[in-house]
Amino acid sequence: MGFRKLVRYEYDGNVHYGDLLETSDNGFKVVKLSGNITDGFSATESEPITVKKLLCPLENTPIVQCVGVNYRQHATEAKMPVPEYPVIFSKPSDTLAGPLDDIPVHPDASPMMDFEGELTVVIGRDAKNVSESEALDYVFGYTAGNDVSARNFQLKDAAGGQFGYSKSFDAFAPIGPAIWSAKEVPNPQTLQLTTRVNGEVRQATNTSDMIWSVQQIIAHLSRGRTLKSGTVIMTGTPSGVGFFQKRFLKDGDIVEVEIEGLGKVSNKMVFV
Amino acid sequence: MGFRKLVRYEYDGNVHYGDLLETSDNGFKVVKLSGNITDGFSATESEPITVKKLLCPLENTPIVQCVGVNYRQHATEAKMPVPEYPVIFSKPSDTLAGPLDDIPVHPDASPMMDFEGELTVVIGRDAKNVSESEALDYVFGYTAGNDVSARNFQLKDAAGGQFGYSKSFDAFAPIGPAIWSAKEVPNPQTLQLTTRVNGEVRQATNTSDMIWSVQQIIAHLSRGRTLKSGTVIMTGTPSGVGFFQKRFLKDGDIVEVEIEGLGKVSNKMVFV
Repeated sequence: MGFRKLVRYEYDGNVHYGDLLETSDNGFKVVKLSGNITDGFSATESEPITVKKLLCPLENTPIVQCVGVNYRQHATEAKMPVPEYPVIFSKPSDTLAGPLDDIPVHPDASPMMDFEGELTVVIGRDAKNVSESEALDYVFGYTAGNDVSARNFQLKDAAGGQFGYSKSFDAFAPIGPAIWSAKEVPNPQTLQLTTRVNGEVRQATNTSDMIWSVQQIIAHLSRGRTLKSGTVIMTGTPSGVGFFQKRFLKDGDIVEVEIEGLGKVSNKMVFV
Repeated sequence: MGFRKLVRYEYDGNVHYGDLLETSDNGFKVVKLSGNITDGFSATESEPITVKKLLCPLENTPIVQCVGVNYRQHATEAKMPVPEYPVIFSKPSDTLAGPLDDIPVHPDASPMMDFEGELTVVIGRDAKNVSESEALDYVFGYTAGNDVSARNFQLKDAAGGQFGYSKSFDAFAPIGPAIWSAKEVPNPQTLQLTTRVNGEVRQATNTSDMIWSVQQIIAHLSRGRTLKSGTVIMTGTPSGVGFFQKRFLKDGDIVEVEIEGLGKVSNKMVFV
């Protein structure tokens, strides 16, 4: 595939794919790649450069599929029993946002704004009826994601208990900073996931605590249906979200979701 | 716009758009149109022909948005309180199917197969933060749809009460036979909707009984988010679905959903 940590960035007025070599206070050291997600990437002879901003590593997606109640501690905190199958809901493509983008918060969404740090999977080719044992062959890579949630629309009395709408405002699914090649992550159930709000740690878990593994989720999401190439899967959030502590996000708050070894998304909430 | 009832059909090895002139025992009398959904359609000088089969009137869709619990009688039958906002969930693009297509039923989906006849809206241009009063300006047209549902995956113990997964198998959203131009339907809240299983009437309602009107649904689905051109909105089903009568669909059953004045989808359930 020819990449380790795939990023997108703007340089000289054009948008490029690149490999993320290093992150420092100066910015992101990247080297340009040629190719695209469908056909694959190869190295170029460009010299590495340092850029201040990264774009969303995916230009678009067919859909964002999400798993609810997928960490045992979060299930306990939410007083939600663990059902027989993964809890699935989805977000439209325009929820995608970049790792450093501001998240505009619609006035109606502002009363109970919340974060959900999540290990996020990008599917690399169409999957249908795949078994758990072959599921990881369909993974393009892994990234960090924030399943941003306007809880006032998620309450049962407000929206009948359906989760998707509250999480489907434009830009409510920032991912990044890079897509970590599946080849570099032989076991996605060993990753350290940390969420910070204005620097304070609010979620800290290992993906080994997930109830449904990435393999099981992919098999489930391909049952009798096409899990399309480019689909983004947010695999569920651990305990620590604001809702159960009645601590909601305010205008200007910065939420970071980090996967150890990969990097983080860092998004400012901008109440509009 | 240059069409009244937009259809897609195959003729001479090519797929064409056409206007549906008449439906009879011989098939569908159509006249070819030139153009496409983005740029609009215009008449051609072709002679009308009669075809046996119509394809899905949309080649694809960004997403299928669905409204739950949107008829008062159905809310009573389901013992579901009417929440403050419309109940929203969604189905991926590959759920689209044609008006005469067989619906393949995965073995895991077979125990509690069910239908939901629905007035279905097709969005004609991107909508964001539109008011109820301007909402209908964004409608491309109306069609009949079946929100096919594998209820065993919709039960709370199975899937945590989230509706989407049970309805997201490939081809679980047949629509058609045609898209009725919004210009021909000045008021979508006056349409007669009938669902039959093997000829027996199981749902018969007027869209005047909807809790949330098409205008209200579009305004809600564009709140702080982009409701994309081509999006399909299934506006909810009236009372009479199989679940509350414990009468589920069997292999070979034919489900018809008809909108008076437009026509019907007629799909056979094929347990695979």
